[in-house]
Amino acid sequence: MSLQQISEQMLPAIELELRKMVGLVLWPELDEMHHMLAYHMGWEEEGAGAEAGGKRIRPLLVTLCASAAGGDWLKAIPGAAAVELVHNFSLVHDDIQDESHTRRGRATLWTLWGVAQAINAGDALFSLGQLAALGLARTVSEQAGLQAGLVLQETCLHLTQGQYLDLSYEGRQDLKVADYWPMVAGKTAALLSASTYIGALAAQAPPEICESYRQFGEGLGLAFQAQDDWLGIWGDSALIGKSTASDLVSRKKSLPVLFGLSQEGIFAGRWRQGPIHPEEVPELAAQLEAEGGREFVEKETDRLTKQALEALARAKPQGDAGDALGELADYLLMRKA
Amino acid sequence: MSLQQISEQMLPAIELELRKMVGLVLWPELDEMHHMLAYHMGWEEEGAGAEAGGKRIRPLLVTLCASAAGGDWLKAIPGAAAVELVHNFSLVHDDIQDESHTRRGRATLWTLWGVAQAINAGDALFSLGQLAALGLARTVSEQAGLQAGLVLQETCLHLTQGQYLDLSYEGRQDLKVADYWPMVAGKTAALLSASTYIGALAAQAPPEICESYRQFGEGLGLAFQAQDDWLGIWGDSALIGKSTASDLVSRKKSLPVLFGLSQEGIFAGRWRQGPIHPEEVPELAAQLEAEGGREFVEKETDRLTKQALEALARAKPQGDAGDALGELADYLLMRKA
Repeated sequence: MSLQQISEQMLPAIELELRKMVGLVLWPELDEMHHMLAYHMGWEEEGAGAEAGGKRIRPLLVTLCASAAGGDWLKAIPGAAAVELVHNFSLVHDDIQDESHTRRGRATLWTLWGVAQAINAGDALFSLGQLAALGLARTVSEQAGLQAGLVLQETCLHLTQGQYLDLSYEGRQDLKVADYWPMVAGKTAALLSASTYIGALAAQAPPEICESYRQFGEGLGLAFQAQDDWLGIWGDSALIGKSTASDLVSRKKSLPVLFGLSQEGIFAGRWRQGPIHPEEVPELAAQLEAEGGREFVEKETDRLTKQALEALARAKPQGDAGDALGELADYLLMRKA
Repeated sequence: MSLQQISEQMLPAIELELRKMVGLVLWPELDEMHHMLAYHMGWEEEGAGAEAGGKRIRPLLVTLCASAAGGDWLKAIPGAAAVELVHNFSLVHDDIQDESHTRRGRATLWTLWGVAQAINAGDALFSLGQLAALGLARTVSEQAGLQAGLVLQETCLHLTQGQYLDLSYEGRQDLKVADYWPMVAGKTAALLSASTYIGALAAQAPPEICESYRQFGEGLGLAFQAQDDWLGIWGDSALIGKSTASDLVSRKKSLPVLFGLSQEGIFAGRWRQGPIHPEEVPELAAQLEAEGGREFVEKETDRLTKQALEALARAKPQGDAGDALGELADYLLMRKA
């Protein structure tokens, strides 16, 4: 069975569990609160559908890892819902913090219901995520529930640390490549590593196997982010499409930019002068490439991809789900099969 | 031993555990993030000290109930830290939502560090609270840790439901007394009932005793809020002091106000006209009293106080801590000894 076929089995079960958890907020006085959460999850209002909900990569990692580690993926479903709910909690709060008006092609929660209700809706998703994780106590064992709860909270703490760094970098001109990794470790890699780890926990895999799955998720997260940052400057939509899509215009503190700043060359000089116009994008991207930024990011991505795949190999993933995990990693990291 | 003597033993241990948990955010890059949390907890900056941190009533309820239920209060300390951290998470977010500039006589976190960092600091306190609760798995048993984690998350979900209602009542003119209870059950009573329940759980008390402690905390929370609402209109500082302290001026949807609105009398008519000036406060408070508001709230407070004390009696609290619990309830509910 291919990744696609396995996903078609797993995704409906994941969606059902997500709806069950969000359904905990469904009593008559709370209709509108439930509606906010259902809107954000992509289930209600104009534009509702799979695209509005996102790809559900994280919960899929949980069920795939559970199955590849020799467990029953159905028992891992509470853990899958947990990581997706936590991911969505962080998106709701991120959108307020970044003053983002759209997400997945639709208006963000705070633009529709205001900042106060959006903070609260995020908090509710946070609680629901943690409640879901503790549900592994029912489907697997008390110990698995407790472990998943601990891992998820440590992850959330790590998320807030990454977010703190991201916010604190605002307006700073002295950032270096070394400032990039702790931010991305918290903002992106923490939840991916929690996903693969919780999947292995739900399969009651031995500690060293759980740890290999954790490292796989962590490497995957770091490699994915480095690659995403590459795309944000040299990808087609950033460079050839409307250059407003470029991270250079949005001034994102991405890996290529931090590399460029540390070079103290022409790129760094121009960056520090202030806002970059869309028309400048192709030339500035070429300048950053000439200063070695493109090659640096490609090497980092390769290094991290290799780390992730080695960790996956150490985890000895089994069966169709094991193959599908490799396929998912290739897809996320845009590697040719 | 009196409540004061027992508190003097317990509070330093509670404070130490709180500092230990917040210390999880202490690595070099995160100095400033740690500082935000330490500021909010009342430990750092101008005005730091016991008053800036609040009374620590909730953690004290945890340790007192643990001891009164026959357990070792030192083992309950992670649960005590948990409820205080969750309480403070909710305060940090509340202050943003209500646009409050001061709390406990000092500037609120968001006024000093901005909304984005304050949302994030609240999220971090949320995670730390949950991590602390799961710590009962170490000091008591895996089951106690899991149970405490579940109770605390259900409580947080309940908090967000109460907060949703509070925010959604903004500007509504058709509120009734029946709208009051679900809001207060979530905003005030949920965390107090979690505190007394987690204390009993940490003592590994039998389920029916844990349930009685839970009901004690719940009744205490509801009675306390009803009484606090009474003070907000007929208390000395609201009526005799500067009348700007009156809930009538701040337009708080308190129990007396909702009673007055449901009477559809002179009070309701004036309330619906819009903002109330401090000079109008004494007359409007007298009007609400004439319409039966004061007597209604006093009767409700008495009824809930009786419920709380009956639940406490059913819990059969033991020893000095048991006596101190009664003393704490009397203090909170302003009952003469």
